Amino acid sequence: MGEKKKFVIDVDCGIDDADALCMAISSPAIEIVGITCVSGNCQVNQVLINTLRVLRACDRLDIPVYKGCSKPLIGYRKGTRDGTYFHGRDGLGNSPDPEGDVDLSLIKKESAVDALIRLSQMYQDELVVVALAPLTNLAVALRIDDEFAKRIKELYIMGGNLTGVGNVSRAAEFNFYSDPESAKIVLKEYKCPITMICWEPCSECPLSWEWYDRITTGNSKKCQFHNRIYKSALVGKRNMPNYYACDPIAMAVAIDNDVASETTLKNCDVNTSESLTRGQMSVDLKNDDSLNYNAKIVLKLDTDKLSKLYEAAFDYK
Amino acid sequence: MGEKKKFVIDVDCGIDDADALCMAISSPAIEIVGITCVSGNCQVNQVLINTLRVLRACDRLDIPVYKGCSKPLIGYRKGTRDGTYFHGRDGLGNSPDPEGDVDLSLIKKESAVDALIRLSQMYQDELVVVALAPLTNLAVALRIDDEFAKRIKELYIMGGNLTGVGNVSRAAEFNFYSDPESAKIVLKEYKCPITMICWEPCSECPLSWEWYDRITTGNSKKCQFHNRIYKSALVGKRNMPNYYACDPIAMAVAIDNDVASETTLKNCDVNTSESLTRGQMSVDLKNDDSLNYNAKIVLKLDTDKLSKLYEAAFDYK
Amino acid sequence: MGEKKKFVIDVDCGIDDADALCMAISSPAIEIVGITCVSGNCQVNQVLINTLRVLRACDRLDIPVYKGCSKPLIGYRKGTRDGTYFHGRDGLGNSPDPEGDVDLSLIKKESAVDALIRLSQMYQDELVVVALAPLTNLAVALRIDDEFAKRIKELYIMGGNLTGVGNVSRAAEFNFYSDPESAKIVLKEYKCPITMICWEPCSECPLSWEWYDRITTGNSKKCQFHNRIYKSALVGKRNMPNYYACDPIAMAVAIDNDVASETTLKNCDVNTSESLTRGQMSVDLKNDDSLNYNAKIVLKLDTDKLSKLYEAAFDYK
Amino acid sequence: MGEKKKFVIDVDCGIDDADALCMAISSPAIEIVGITCVSGNCQVNQVLINTLRVLRACDRLDIPVYKGCSKPLIGYRKGTRDGTYFHGRDGLGNSPDPEGDVDLSLIKKESAVDALIRLSQMYQDELVVVALAPLTNLAVALRIDDEFAKRIKELYIMGGNLTGVGNVSRAAEFNFYSDPESAKIVLKEYKCPITMICWEPCSECPLSWEWYDRITTGNSKKCQFHNRIYKSALVGKRNMPNYYACDPIAMAVAIDNDVASETTLKNCDVNTSESLTRGQMSVDLKNDDSLNYNAKIVLKLDTDKLSKLYEAAFDYK
Ligand SMILES: [Ca+2]
Ligand SMILES: [Ca+2]
Ligand SMILES: [Ca+2]
Ligand SMILES: [Ca+2]
Repeated sequence: MGEKKKFVIDVDCGIDDADALCMAISSPAIEIVGITCVSGNCQVNQVLINTLRVLRACDRLDIPVYKGCSKPLIGYRKGTRDGTYFHGRDGLGNSPDPEGDVDLSLIKKESAVDALIRLSQMYQDELVVVALAPLTNLAVALRIDDEFAKRIKELYIMGGNLTGVGNVSRAAEFNFYSDPESAKIVLKEYKCPITMICWEPCSECPLSWEWYDRITTGNSKKCQFHNRIYKSALVGKRNMPNYYACDPIAMAVAIDNDVASETTLKNCDVNTSESLTRGQMSVDLKNDDSLNYNAKIVLKLDTDKLSKLYEAAFDYK
Repeated sequence: MGEKKKFVIDVDCGIDDADALCMAISSPAIEIVGITCVSGNCQVNQVLINTLRVLRACDRLDIPVYKGCSKPLIGYRKGTRDGTYFHGRDGLGNSPDPEGDVDLSLIKKESAVDALIRLSQMYQDELVVVALAPLTNLAVALRIDDEFAKRIKELYIMGGNLTGVGNVSRAAEFNFYSDPESAKIVLKEYKCPITMICWEPCSECPLSWEWYDRITTGNSKKCQFHNRIYKSALVGKRNMPNYYACDPIAMAVAIDNDVASETTLKNCDVNTSESLTRGQMSVDLKNDDSLNYNAKIVLKLDTDKLSKLYEAAFDYK
Repeated sequence: MGEKKKFVIDVDCGIDDADALCMAISSPAIEIVGITCVSGNCQVNQVLINTLRVLRACDRLDIPVYKGCSKPLIGYRKGTRDGTYFHGRDGLGNSPDPEGDVDLSLIKKESAVDALIRLSQMYQDELVVVALAPLTNLAVALRIDDEFAKRIKELYIMGGNLTGVGNVSRAAEFNFYSDPESAKIVLKEYKCPITMICWEPCSECPLSWEWYDRITTGNSKKCQFHNRIYKSALVGKRNMPNYYACDPIAMAVAIDNDVASETTLKNCDVNTSESLTRGQMSVDLKNDDSLNYNAKIVLKLDTDKLSKLYEAAFDYK
Repeated sequence: MGEKKKFVIDVDCGIDDADALCMAISSPAIEIVGITCVSGNCQVNQVLINTLRVLRACDRLDIPVYKGCSKPLIGYRKGTRDGTYFHGRDGLGNSPDPEGDVDLSLIKKESAVDALIRLSQMYQDELVVVALAPLTNLAVALRIDDEFAKRIKELYIMGGNLTGVGNVSRAAEFNFYSDPESAKIVLKEYKCPITMICWEPCSECPLSWEWYDRITTGNSKKCQFHNRIYKSALVGKRNMPNYYACDPIAMAVAIDNDVASETTLKNCDVNTSESLTRGQMSVDLKNDDSLNYNAKIVLKLDTDKLSKLYEAAFDYK
């Protein structure tokens, strides 16, 4: 199966990272060569636990898991918050696991940053990085190895926003707000193809509740796991016109680029100043970016293709 | 005619301020009690000249004109630019005036700021301020007289943006970018009803070129004046799908609130930090602002009503 | 006495502004042509009251007093504080006045900013401005009249610091911290001779307590007034090795330049960013500023000359 | 010799790092367990070369050398400059080495950050870190291993300033200016004893030129190496009243704490905002820091003790 795409997935394993991991695991086209953890939705030590819980639910504890950075690049600033308001105190909906504690000795001794660098050498020009969390690990990897990003085949980022409207502050999206300096480094210094899956196309994604209810009634282990960890978050989400979750959409685009039905090439940057708009992404729409772009931005989604990948993730038939 | 609305109009008289002044002058419902000038599209001394040219074209040199601030509140910063790239070196399309030089002795000795304060006392609870320029004069008026804004009936502002996309920098609209600190002061400290006419509804306003060509073929003095000053700007504008100009739209809303066919009450603020997004307006869409709003934002326009006011401005029948 | 120097004094009348006013009034070489008030040590309306109390104690209620700006140029920011922790709730040591309320009708109707501009015209190239407060009035005067600073003969500023150590924040001096943007405007845009009397030479001024106790035992009206308003502040000050107060030192230098026994010409600027060092003055010592300086900085004081001016201020013989 | 102090030395090997390394190597009390390199005075790849040249001149190529970060933590900002204006294009005074190229295969494969973490484990509570460069490696080590700083015995930092006067910008010292975010992280997050050797005590250190000329006339290999690399820098330095160099002073204090004849415990922080004072250290002198301090600041030096260590470094007898 050497022709499988090699994915390394960077997570802050909240509930939507969990679904995204299930989706990648369910895809026959993907080989996950590592999962790197970072603080974000919850603290990195909890992210490690959560990631092992997801892998156990998928019977894939063989996938190597690495511990990454425990704080944003420049440390915490006033107003930085973790995602526990949404993802639960434990980042997975405060859902006790019937299978009990995970085996922490499974965590690799190698650091996430070293693993990223080593994998980029082992799978040079093949490695696909799917970043579903604050971009601290990726920024640090580049500081330690200037050549890191050049060896990567593609980078998919769930993060940032397109219209100055935020989901965590008034102006910024959670992953970028949590570590704006790292986001800026990745956007400005990574010289590999970058695909941005921002807040707006995710939150406007028209997956119906009817569809959601149908695919989540299965009794597969993965489906039941999903139902446990999403239970409390769904209370609020049910008020929205549609079901959406960001990380699985980013993963779906990484697995099958055609999930992105409309894209544009633009120059993206992040405001890092201590200000009202700290962490906001800013897309340069004024200038023709045919030469100056640094990312492909996903504008619209093919919900048919997306829903198929979701169904596979939950073993829905 | 005591029942006419009392307007004081703050301008940086570029070509679209000129049309907005023509529109206000043409309205039988409005009495212009003063025009205050400020640097923006061009330097304040040129703004004074341009304003007198507009009034001469309208045969209304009786309207008092006042000189205001010559620089943004905190002075020029790297990257601050005037509007001459669009409005011409003289702010009015580099169009020589067949009637020759204006009579600068008509400029009042009283400063624009003192005039604003005096008019707010003379027409307490009646005065409508229509701000079509960087908000320096309005910010300074409040510093000199803490009670100034409380005496104003309504404030209409052409400025700011809604979606983080700019027309002068990648993130900011011209009037707000030119003096972000003043914009912030007005949005946060003015305790009068504020209506925001931002960049997006203006630039997306669907006035057709066919209509524009029809109403600008008249030979009224105002129409010929418009054609002279717009000549060079139209070269670029003709590439756009529709005709639009910001200041006349703001003036139309001020004259007839029904020109705004859809509005929303929100909390608006401005990023003033030295950063990628300096001068960008940020609208708080996350929080229900039924209690916390500071402005009514115009979202959509009634182009029929708008076009009628334009036609009157050019004496088109 | 046409040859007297024409002083306009800008105050936020706390207890050391009071002494500085007494000192200027006591000097036969000075004619005070106006006192402009601004928020700082206390709110501007209280500054007006305090200034009238000082003038009454000096029997000089004929000197015109003007109301200036009530807030810093860009408004209050987190951490801005008034000076009431030191100057008392009323800015004058919470000392009830045995003579009762002052007559507020003495306050001129003309704004402080208009008065500054008018006086600069009336006494062109003669007017000396002594600024003992946040520089808001001076910054606004320049915005309203670009030529204002060119007409001034000299400007003396009590404010700023030389070594990055503050008296209100860890890095900034009170007057500059209270309105850094105005301080920056004055330092960068005022093209008149500026003399800076900063925190360090004032706080290190070696006036002995023995001397202080001697000159404050008189029973002149001014001395008793001083004793009343300084009573509570002295409790803390007595722990210092020497007596000092900033505003009277700045005034002494303005009255007699020889009070400054050592000076240097340097380029001064202010950090205005929202940061640890907001409001800190920064002196360019790296570059030879023989061409690039914007201020004369007072480094050392002649305490003999200074003490003589103090003695005159309190009618000490 | 198990009782020797274990030093890891972080360098951006310019000419004064070179002397500091010579000094540490000459001390019988010190075992250098690693040298970690980082960009600063020159790019990290040049720093590696320079460090090997120093070790060759000292006949100590057995000491392990590690490659660290090639850019400041958040990347380059406008105005960031390397130190080649002072240290020469190659960081070592543009002095060709008569011994020819160094053997780059001696550079360890392990990254500097991994080496720092491993050494902190191997020599837990024993390791002394001497930081003579921008603090990027130290900041990144803490991001990758939260516990790193807790295992360190002591940290000595050459960097920062005490009085707001800079040697690279008007307000900031070179090492802190080159990476203010890393300096802030180290000062705020490192919970080990920190000794700061800042710009002022170094630049005011009264080593006489007479002394310098005497100790640098030897024909030891280290002395000749020093003379080669300092040749061009001395041209400017000779105008100063005394000889000084920062890194050797910091090293001397680390080797023998009594070289610091006067110290104080204070809270230190760094301004990281994009501003006039970016990179400036700010010492909190307002508050009694007996509880709140984070560093011991060296105020004065014992030049006798310092000169003895210098003499040993150059094998002067
Ligand atoms: Ca995530
Ligand atoms: Ca305008
Ligand atoms: Ca004062
Ligand atoms: Ca160094």
